[in-house]
Amino acid sequence: MARFEVAKARALARLQRSGADEEIAGVLQKINARADYYTTSSCSGRIVLILLPEIGAKREARFIGKWHRPVEREEVLAVMVDAPFAEGELWLVAQSPIIHVACRTVEKAGILLRLALEAGFKYSGMKGIARDTGIVVVEMLSTERMDVPVASRAAVLVDETSVEFIVTKANFMLHRGKEKLKRFELRLNAL
Amino acid sequence: MARFEVAKARALARLQRSGADEEIAGVLQKINARADYYTTSSCSGRIVLILLPEIGAKREARFIGKWHRPVEREEVLAVMVDAPFAEGELWLVAQSPIIHVACRTVEKAGILLRLALEAGFKYSGMKGIARDTGIVVVEMLSTERMDVPVASRAAVLVDETSVEFIVTKANFMLHRGKEKLKRFELRLNAL
Repeated sequence: MARFEVAKARALARLQRSGADEEIAGVLQKINARADYYTTSSCSGRIVLILLPEIGAKREARFIGKWHRPVEREEVLAVMVDAPFAEGELWLVAQSPIIHVACRTVEKAGILLRLALEAGFKYSGMKGIARDTGIVVVEMLSTERMDVPVASRAAVLVDETSVEFIVTKANFMLHRGKEKLKRFELRLNAL
Repeated sequence: MARFEVAKARALARLQRSGADEEIAGVLQKINARADYYTTSSCSGRIVLILLPEIGAKREARFIGKWHRPVEREEVLAVMVDAPFAEGELWLVAQSPIIHVACRTVEKAGILLRLALEAGFKYSGMKGIARDTGIVVVEMLSTERMDVPVASRAAVLVDETSVEFIVTKANFMLHRGKEKLKRFELRLNAL
């Protein structure tokens, strides 16, 4: 077996073990059914509350809340008040769907990238070409993204009205990301 | 002249006409001095107040305030209160530096992309390969990003304390983006 096939078999076994979000499973299946592609990681979009120990150190972020579905104001507030934000900053972040796809060649990567951009995944791009195998990873990412600081060491920065607004906004982004996934799944017939 | 050279000459003429932010001029100069690359657009990072007419319609965003330098709370508040946010939503957004670079080949694009990722521009990627010329555009983008809704049709969503925090944060991100630009400028000697 060529190296691409070995790596693909390994990635598919990992996917089978860990599973994927329901809303994205169809997309992954279609991509993995093609001989020149395989997925290495994915998320269908989510809303998270993260605690950052110091200004901008996103690497050491701790997840305080994580939802792959629309949230309600009350549940976010409930998690927020319990969060140890005296230790840092609390951010509410809405994240677009993300998919990493390994492609056999640069040409194949270009075809997938074009489909992704056309389906509204405007922040997609090739993340590099492996020196040894020539495999190219395409990162599919959409524009639905919001990073809002909600509390810091010093104080809670939002009141109930603004949490209401932020939650509505985050739910809308989540919804729109998942709509784009559906649109992309249809387009994948052209891959 | 080959098509790459024609396109490069056009891009350089445009750059000379329109100019570039001071903090990014050195980077652009170094890239454009290389035979296999030219820049097509850039921004050294900025803080903006934008008015969105309806939920998520970023295309129709109107800039109410735009700063390529650190801001003070008072000046942001002054612009905020005058903004016509009865017409939509007002957001304060901090944006990372961004540079688009046209590269002669995929191989050359890969070299630049690696440098960009190593310098901390972690959201960088190749945005596609032109079918006719083979020219690849690399988008360099960093992680400094914050989106805060500050007012909506309904109400002002932030008080003076949170504006203070948001402004401090935005200034910090702006500063860090510009530090990364400096680091990248040094690394460009290896291009």
